[in-house]
This record gives sequence, structure tokens and C-alpha cells, in this order.
Amino acid sequence: MRVNKVKKSVELSGVVAGNTAICTVGKTGNDLHYRGYDIGELATACEFEEVAFLLVYGKLPNLTELNQYKQLLCSLRKLPTNVINVLEQLPKNTHPMDVLRSGVSVLGAIESEKNGSDISENYTIVNRLIATLPGMLAYWYHFSHHHKTIDLTKSDEQTIAGYFLHILHGNKPTQLNIKAMNISLILYAEHEFNASTFTARVISGTGSDIYSAVCGAIGALKGFKHGGANEVALEIQKRYSNVAQAITDIQQRLAKKEVIIGFGHPVYTNCDPRNVIIKQIAYELAVDKNDMLIYNIACAIETLMWDSKNMFPNLDWFSAVSYHLMGIPTDMFTPIFVISRISGWSAHIMEQRQDGKIIRPNANYVGPENQSFISINDRN
Amino acid sequence: MRVNKVKKSVELSGVVAGNTAICTVGKTGNDLHYRGYDIGELATACEFEEVAFLLVYGKLPNLTELNQYKQLLCSLRKLPTNVINVLEQLPKNTHPMDVLRSGVSVLGAIESEKNGSDISENYTIVNRLIATLPGMLAYWYHFSHHHKTIDLTKSDEQTIAGYFLHILHGNKPTQLNIKAMNISLILYAEHEFNASTFTARVISGTGSDIYSAVCGAIGALKGFKHGGANEVALEIQKRYSNVAQAITDIQQRLAKKEVIIGFGHPVYTNCDPRNVIIKQIAYELAVDKNDMLIYNIACAIETLMWDSKNMFPNLDWFSAVSYHLMGIPTDMFTPIFVISRISGWSAHIMEQRQDGKIIRPNANYVGPENQSFISINDRN
Repeated sequence: MRVNKVKKSVELSGVVAGNTAICTVGKTGNDLHYRGYDIGELATACEFEEVAFLLVYGKLPNLTELNQYKQLLCSLRKLPTNVINVLEQLPKNTHPMDVLRSGVSVLGAIESEKNGSDISENYTIVNRLIATLPGMLAYWYHFSHHHKTIDLTKSDEQTIAGYFLHILHGNKPTQLNIKAMNISLILYAEHEFNASTFTARVISGTGSDIYSAVCGAIGALKGFKHGGANEVALEIQKRYSNVAQAITDIQQRLAKKEVIIGFGHPVYTNCDPRNVIIKQIAYELAVDKNDMLIYNIACAIETLMWDSKNMFPNLDWFSAVSYHLMGIPTDMFTPIFVISRISGWSAHIMEQRQDGKIIRPNANYVGPENQSFISINDRN
Repeated sequence: MRVNKVKKSVELSGVVAGNTAICTVGKTGNDLHYRGYDIGELATACEFEEVAFLLVYGKLPNLTELNQYKQLLCSLRKLPTNVINVLEQLPKNTHPMDVLRSGVSVLGAIESEKNGSDISENYTIVNRLIATLPGMLAYWYHFSHHHKTIDLTKSDEQTIAGYFLHILHGNKPTQLNIKAMNISLILYAEHEFNASTFTARVISGTGSDIYSAVCGAIGALKGFKHGGANEVALEIQKRYSNVAQAITDIQQRLAKKEVIIGFGHPVYTNCDPRNVIIKQIAYELAVDKNDMLIYNIACAIETLMWDSKNMFPNLDWFSAVSYHLMGIPTDMFTPIFVISRISGWSAHIMEQRQDGKIIRPNANYVGPENQSFISINDRN
């Protein structure tokens, strides 16, 4: 839970549950590395596909490999008719995370995994999921909200970032919005043994298929203590019509010991290394739109939280500002996290398979001992 | 993994990942208790609904409570049209575990959880899942295999065991088959922090909903190292046309150090306390059907494994024999495990919610350190 005093409520905190070569979080302080590369360099210099390739295949692609990879992902965008039919069964008020969980489950039923130890098939499934998640979400959104069926193969946007914005909004995204979405997808792509990734690894440990692991991970990410936090962050920011009102109200809430979602982190100690990057792009979006209100409110609360509680914003805080400025509906914030984190989950699922271990901890029993069994006719 | 040398391949083995008042496995040796009650007493004296009530509500029901509970479950059998429509999209060759995972996901999208801290709603959802899983499976089976739509509310069988057999086979089950299914459901209902239950707890720990946790648990149970083992057990037993052939072949396989699925256990040391119970009912089913072949083969392999390897059969070994004799298709063995274990999962999900902790372990990093970032145009 990315809130104050979080360490006290984390189970297995500090307990090593396996080896990984994918990511380090705060190893030498407030840093984050994907396969040894600093997040700051990746987020400012790469496209999301470059980082997804790094996570899934273990190395940064060269220009030819990146272009081939982007072409491959573009070619995998079409959904099977059965999945489309299932998406059309999900009404407007469905939680978008339930849409993605169901879409992935049915895709896994239709295009089922044949052999988990076939690495080539592993890559095929993983890339299929990376390519189709934006389409599942956008197809369901337009069908359920506007009775409109969209063609998922029509966009000529070559990146996941551009494609998602294009099919969601129905018009060509600006270069700035594509850049912002790319950065956001990179920042959310991977974070070691967080709860959703750990879920994917526990499921993979039993020998189950990739789709099952991803369904479980989506379910875990849905929780308000995990992926749901960026939606809550915007709700807080949108409560206020000006900076002064925000300051006064947050001060009152802090006095009542209320937890402010979007601040603090269970691993980082005095800043989240992703904040400076997402905050900069939120600023650029606000300037571009000539709409500084939410950004200014977010900055004011950031300063207040630091001055009064020594707490810093985590990735969710200015991600909320950025998505809002890109015109993304709030209940799609966590699904965007899925569209990004599928890359990290995939890497962990494949790594757990190589590891070959089932994950099965013990429990501390605190219940009744040796109950005498009483036949049902004699029970009170 | 319920096979030889399994302890070497279990991650987090012996590490306490939380408190529980639901179950103890092998606490004083080869024993198993649900909420303090010995499994032997529960399996021989109770109906599955009695044990599900015990797990979910924390106490054994009296006769009035049991009857009310059974009536409640009967009243919850009908599936929403959207779920039916989705089941009809899943072709004949779909893995039945993918059917249940998708069915639960879509049910969770349609009848979504409103408030996780509303205990009354928790019970409603849990009971809805217990009541509807047999119908999801049977509806899809008849529709995809025989182009037949079945009415899930028509059976007058008052127990899950009888209801499932009735809607699966299309005719009234015998009392012996109902008894056998009841016992099997009770034996599979709960087993502490096994991988699927642990998955459900990790997902619940993020604050996510019950359906998400159950989807993840189904995915974990699907793995061949977990719930898939009873299907593999029957495949082994069915390989042979007589006992002598089985003995010779298994001896040869053991000489080649092949692992025989259905034997050994990561917790129990010299027997699985559930084996004696399931073996007895398998014997009764074989005698009743006047078909001793698979039972005799299973017994002969049991003796051989003990004499040559000091290994004992776990619950899966004679469950496979029993299901086979009840005429259940092999790929429904693991889904029956779901129909049973939903009771244990539900208890753990609600317990994890009370606990309020997110489960987030650490990882041991074994990857490259401080990679120098090279711009894409300069990469080889």
C-alpha cells in the first residue's frame, strides 16, 4: 500500500521469495533499474516497445529489431470473434479491469497454450497479449458506451502508446500525447516482486499457463492498495476548485490522520525516482493544454505533504494529472497500468518457469484445536 | 508438487506468510483438521454443505441451519444470461478450467462486488460461487459437446454432489455416487496455504474483489503440479490392461527414476490421511459397478511404490479411480477440485481481508548491474 506507515501492514516484507534478473527497486537508495538500466535513461530515451523488448527478451533491441518487433505487435492486434462476442456481453457499468480479466481469460480459452516449455510459444502468447490489451479495452468501451463497433486493425499508429490513444479517442493523437503515454507506459512497466507480479509467479509456479497467470495478476492489480491508487489520486486532485482550497482541506485531513493516497512508498525512502519524470511530462501537458489547475493543485499538495509529513509523491500522483490532461476516463487509469505491466509480468512468468519451483509458504495457525465432533442431530 | 523430492523445489517452504484459523496440515503428523475438526470425522459423517458452512462461517451448522443453507444454495443456481452467452462462445476443445476461470470472471463483471468490507455481501458472493460453479461447467459441457442447452434450475437434487452428477449425466445419480462425490468434495475442500489458496490471499491482500481472487486461484489450481495431478493419475492407471503389466512397467519406470504422479506429499511424511477414506469409497464404487480393474491396478501400484520407494499415495491417486468409476470425463477432475475448494478459498479470502495486509515479498537480484545505456542508433 503506497501510503504512510505502510511497512507495518506488509506480509512477507523483506522475505526473499525467489531469484530475479529483471528488476531492482531501491537497491542503492531511491533508484529503479530494469535489467540493470536506470529508469531515468529508459523513460527519456526509449519507446515503450523498446522497454517491453528489454524486459521480455532480456536485451535492448537495435533499430532493426525494434522495427521488426513493432511490426510484429501491429500484426497481432486483431481479436478472435469469440473474444469480441464476449466483450459485447459486458455492459457499460462493468469495471474495466473486469473487462480485461475476462478478455484475457477468454483469449486464453480460445488460443490456449499448447506446451508451457515451448519458449517460442511463450513469446507468441506474451506478444499477443501486449498487442491486444489496448484493443480489448477500447473495443468494449466504444461498444458498451456508444453502441459502436471499432476496427482494431485500422489504426496506422505504430506504437502501443499511439495506437491506444488513437482507438480510444477516435482521432490521431498529438506527438506530445504519444510521448507522454510512452513515458507513462515505461514507468509502470516493471517493479520487481510487487503483489500482481508475485501473483503471476505463484500461478506460474504450479505449471499453469500464461493466460491464467495474467488473469490473476490483473485481479491483483485491481486492488485499491495496488494499481487502483492512480484513480484515487485524481479523485483527490479533482475535489478542489483552486490551490488555496486544496491546501486548507488537506491540512484538515492530515490533522485527522487521514491517509492521502499517492504519497509514500514501501521501498523508496525519500523520493520515488519516477516522480520527477512523470511530473515533467504532466507539466508539459498542462502548458500545452493551457490548463494548469490540476497540475498546480497536485504541486501544492506535494509541497504541503513534504513540509508537514516528510512524504513524497509516488508515480501515481502525477500520472493521474497526466492521464487527466490526455482526456482519459478515470476508470481507465488502472487498465493502462495493465497495458504497461503486461511486459514485466511476462518476463517474470517466463523466469518463474525456468526456475521450476512451486511457491507454497506455511501459515501460523491461530484457530481452535482438536474440536470434538458432534453429530448434526445433537448440535445446538 | 505432490511427487518425490518435492521439498527441494518448493519456494517459501516453511516460511510463515500469515495467520490462519481455518486449517492445519500435518501439525502433529499425518493429520488434517478443518477449523479444529479431524478430516476423518468430517468426511465420514458430513455432507459437503456442512463442511462448506464450517469453512465459510467458522462453525458446524445445526440441522436447521444446514437445511436453510442448502435451500439458499439451491436458490442461487441460475446463471445470468450474459454468463450463459459467454459459456456458449467457448468451443468443445476448451480446457474446462479455462471455462470456469472465464465463467467466474464474467459473473464477477456482471454481478460485481460493491463493497469489500460489507461482510454480508461477501457471504452472498461466496455462496453464489459455490452454487453456480457446477452449473457453469455442466452447461458449457452439454452445449459445446452435444449442442444441448440445459436448465440449471430443474434438478431437484438438494446437494452440490447430487446436483453436479445430475446435471452432468442427465439422469438421477445413485445414492452411492452421491455419497462418493460428497466425500470427495469434503476431502478436497481445504488445505491451508497451498498454491491456489495462497494466490487467492495475495490477490485479496491488494483490496481486490472476491471474483478476482477466485479467478487467480482457478488459474493456479490448473497447473499440473497442483490440481492437475488427479487427471495425470488416471492416465497412469489407464495405461495398463492388467495388474501384472502395471507392475512390470512401473518397476521399469522407477528404475529410470521417473516420477509417478499421485504419490508423496510435501507436508505428510508417511501417509496422506485422506487416502484411506477415498480408497474405501473407490473400493465400494468398484464393487458396485462390478469393475475392479482400475481399482486393482491402483492398489498394486500403491503396494509397489511403498515396497520399493517408501512412497504413499496422496488424495489424487484413488480420487482418480473414484471419478473414473462415477463416469466423469477425465478433464473434469480438476474442475471438481474447484467446485470443492471454492469453500476453502472463500474462507481464506475473507480471513485475508480481515487481516488487511498486502502480501509483497522481496526478490534476490541475480541480473546485470549498472548497464550503460547506449542510444538505439549506436546499438549492434
